[in-house]
Amino acid sequence: MQHIDIKDIFDRKSGYTGKIVTVCGWVRTSRDSKNIAFLEINDGTAFKHLQIVADKNTIGDTAKFMPLCSAGSVTGTCVTAANNPDSVEINAEKIELLGACPPEYPIQKKPHTLEFLRTVPHLRVRTNTFNAMFRLRSKLSEAIHKYFLERNYTYVHTPIITGSDCEGAGEIFKVTTIGFSKDYKTEEEYNKADFFGRAAGLTVSGQLEGEVMATAMGKIYTFGPTFRAENSNTARHAAEFWQIEPEVAFAEIDDIIGIAAEMIKFVIRFALENCQDELGFFEKFYEPGLKAKLQTVADSEFARVDYSEAVGILKKSGKAFQYPVEWGCDLQTEHERYLTDEVYRRPVFVVNYPKKLKSFYMKQNPDGLTVAATDLLVPGVGEIIGCSERENDYEKLLAAIKERGMKISDLFGSAPVRVGAAQRVRAGA
Amino acid sequence: MQHIDIKDIFDRKSGYTGKIVTVCGWVRTSRDSKNIAFLEINDGTAFKHLQIVADKNTIGDTAKFMPLCSAGSVTGTCVTAANNPDSVEINAEKIELLGACPPEYPIQKKPHTLEFLRTVPHLRVRTNTFNAMFRLRSKLSEAIHKYFLERNYTYVHTPIITGSDCEGAGEIFKVTTIGFSKDYKTEEEYNKADFFGRAAGLTVSGQLEGEVMATAMGKIYTFGPTFRAENSNTARHAAEFWQIEPEVAFAEIDDIIGIAAEMIKFVIRFALENCQDELGFFEKFYEPGLKAKLQTVADSEFARVDYSEAVGILKKSGKAFQYPVEWGCDLQTEHERYLTDEVYRRPVFVVNYPKKLKSFYMKQNPDGLTVAATDLLVPGVGEIIGCSERENDYEKLLAAIKERGMKISDLFGSAPVRVGAAQRVRAGA
Repeated sequence: MQHIDIKDIFDRKSGYTGKIVTVCGWVRTSRDSKNIAFLEINDGTAFKHLQIVADKNTIGDTAKFMPLCSAGSVTGTCVTAANNPDSVEINAEKIELLGACPPEYPIQKKPHTLEFLRTVPHLRVRTNTFNAMFRLRSKLSEAIHKYFLERNYTYVHTPIITGSDCEGAGEIFKVTTIGFSKDYKTEEEYNKADFFGRAAGLTVSGQLEGEVMATAMGKIYTFGPTFRAENSNTARHAAEFWQIEPEVAFAEIDDIIGIAAEMIKFVIRFALENCQDELGFFEKFYEPGLKAKLQTVADSEFARVDYSEAVGILKKSGKAFQYPVEWGCDLQTEHERYLTDEVYRRPVFVVNYPKKLKSFYMKQNPDGLTVAATDLLVPGVGEIIGCSERENDYEKLLAAIKERGMKISDLFGSAPVRVGAAQRVRAGA
Repeated sequence: MQHIDIKDIFDRKSGYTGKIVTVCGWVRTSRDSKNIAFLEINDGTAFKHLQIVADKNTIGDTAKFMPLCSAGSVTGTCVTAANNPDSVEINAEKIELLGACPPEYPIQKKPHTLEFLRTVPHLRVRTNTFNAMFRLRSKLSEAIHKYFLERNYTYVHTPIITGSDCEGAGEIFKVTTIGFSKDYKTEEEYNKADFFGRAAGLTVSGQLEGEVMATAMGKIYTFGPTFRAENSNTARHAAEFWQIEPEVAFAEIDDIIGIAAEMIKFVIRFALENCQDELGFFEKFYEPGLKAKLQTVADSEFARVDYSEAVGILKKSGKAFQYPVEWGCDLQTEHERYLTDEVYRRPVFVVNYPKKLKSFYMKQNPDGLTVAATDLLVPGVGEIIGCSERENDYEKLLAAIKERGMKISDLFGSAPVRVGAAQRVRAGA
C-alpha cells in the first residue's frame, strides 16, 4: 500500500507542504462537529500524532473513523497547521477505513494502570507509555552500536546456549530437550541422552568468549540477551535482560573507566537529541526534571573514589546506616545512595574493591587485597556498570578459581582448554 | 595504555605520516636480518597488518619479538611504506614486549584445517579465516541495523524465554531450573514447581511479538538469537542462530517483496564497500569470483515467479529430478537450484505457495488454495528469506490453527489472548 511515514512528514515539513500525500495510521484522538471532523492519527514512526482535518462535504460521514484505534489510510494535502505554524496537518480528500475498532476495545483515552495493562500484553504497546519506552529502548540500542562501531570495535554474538558458568554463581537456566522424564536413573545418564550429549544452560555472560575475541580483534562488544535464574522479585533483577559487554585488549583500569564514562555520556546525549518527544512524555507523566537530570549526567565530570576511601567517608558520615560499614563489606544501596546523592552529587566510579567481593577473573592489585575493578554509581539509580581489568597471570587466575571453590570444567565445559595461557595481555572493560 | 588503533593509521595515512605514534598488537609475521628486523603486527581493528621496521642499533635485540602472536607495543615514526607508496609503516624507536608467545603455540604461519581449529576454539579467532568471518559478520550486523533504522523502524527485543511455539513445529528447547529430578510424579507437577511455574522454552521466532509491536510502532524489526532443537547435521541448520524479523503494518505482499530485495542489496553493497580486505581474503582462499558474484546480486533486478508457474517450468524442464514435481509439493534444493542457476540466473522470489506448505499465520489468497507468501531463492545458496503477508481475518486464522492440529494455548501460553482481534490491518514482511 503506497503511503509515506508520518515521521518523514514531521521531519521534512517544507518538503511536503502543499503536496498531496497518503498516510496510514491508527486514530488516537477524534473530535466531530457539524461540518468538520478532526482526527489525530499515529503510524508508529513518530511519537507525535498527525492531525487530519476532514470536511464532511468532501469525506462524507466520518462516524466510522471516530472510534479510538480505528486503522485507516488518509489522502490529502499537507498544510501548515492552523493552530501551530511550526507543525503540519492534512486536509483530507479521502479516508479509507482499513480496520474498524469495536467499542469494547480495552484501551480508551483515559489513564490505565500498569497493573491493568499487564493483562493486555498484546495491546499495551499501543499506549503512550509503552510506545515511548520501546522507542527509547530502540534509540538507546542504536546509540550503543553507534558508539562502539564508530570506534573500531567488532560486534560479536557470543553463544547463548553454553556449558560454562562465567560468574560461578550457579544461577543458570538449564536447556534441555528432555525436561520431565522418568526414563533416566541418574543425572549423568539424562545429560548424555540430552540434545547436546551433556549439560547445557543459558549464558549468564558472554565475557569469557568476549575475552577470547578481544585477543584477536582487539576491541569487541557484545550486545545480546543474558539470563539469570535469580529467585528475586525486585525492579533491579530480571530473568532475561540485554547486556553490553565490551572487551578491550591493551587496556588498563584507567582506560576502562574512560570508556565507561564516555559511552554513558554518548548514549545519554544521543537520547536527548533523538528522543525529545519520548523524554518529554516521561518528564510530564513519570519523572519531573528528567531531561535536566540527564543533561547534568552528560555534562558532568564523573567522580572517582577508591573503595577504601569510600568506606572511610561512609564511616565518618555519622549516618545511621541499616548495614554497618567496615572495610571488606559489600556496599549496600543505602551506602551507594549516600555517596552519589549526598557526597558527590554526580556519577562516581568506586575503584579497587576487596578481591573477595569480586569475580575470579579480575586483575589482582599488588596489595594482595584488592582487584582493579570498578562500579559506576549514578545518583538516584545506583550501579549501572561494573567492570575490571582482567587477570593476565595464569597462575593467579587458577588460584582465584580454586579459592572460590569453582571447577575449571564449569568454565570451559567438557574439554577444558588453557585459555589465554600463551598470552599475558591486559584485557578489560 | 595510550595507543592508537592501527585502522586509524591506515584510514588517515597523511594525518599520521611523519608523526610519532604508539600502537599495540600481535606479531603476525616476522623476519630478521643482521641489522634490521621486520615485524607485521595486527591489533584487530583492521584486517591488514602494519609493518614495523626495527633497526637493531636503536631497538637492541629483537629476538624476543620474533615468535608469532607475541604481543607488544611499538612507538615510532609513521612513514610512507618503502615498497608501497599507498601504504604506511612504522620506523620503531621503542618496542615493548607485553606478552611472550611460547614456541608450542598451536597456531603457526602455515595452513591449518578447520577440523584442527575446532580443537582450539579459544585461539582460532586469531586466524585470518575466523578473523575475517567475524569482522564480516559485525559489518553485516551493522548494515542490517543501518538499513532499518534509517527507514524509521523501531528495533525491538522480543522475549527469548517464552511459552509460545510460533511455528508449531515442536522443535523447542525447554528452559528449566529443575532438569533431571526424581522428585516429581507428573509433568504437570514438575512444571508447576519450575522457575516460571509453567513450561517454558527458547523462542523459535519473535514474529508473534513482532506483529503485536508493529500494530503500535508501525515498522519494527527484531535482530536476535533464535533456537531450533532440530536433530539435523547440515550446513543449513543450527540449534542457535541470529535472525532478522521485520514486521510492517499497512504492507501487502508486493511491499514486502520490495523491502526484502532492497534490504539484501543494501547489506551486500555495505559489505562490498566496507569489507574489501575480508572479502578479498575469502575470494583468494575460499571462493574465486566472490566479489563479482555479490556485485551481480546487488545490481540485478530480482526475478519473480508464481509457485504454480515455477512448478510448470520445472515439469517442462525435462530434468530428471530426484524428487518428482507436482503442484503442492515442497520445492527441494534441486528444484530451487534449477530455477536460480539455470532459468533465472539471479535471485528470484517464488510467490503464492500452497497454503498447506506454509504456516498458519500467512494471508490466505482468494483462490482458497495458496497464501501470500514468498521465499527468496539465490543462485548457489538457496532460500535466504521467507516472508508473507499476515492473515488479518480472525476467523480464518483460528481455522488455520485448528486445521494444523495446533493448540491456541501453545501460541499464547497459559493465558490465551485474542491477539489482533480488534484489528484488521495487513501486517507482514
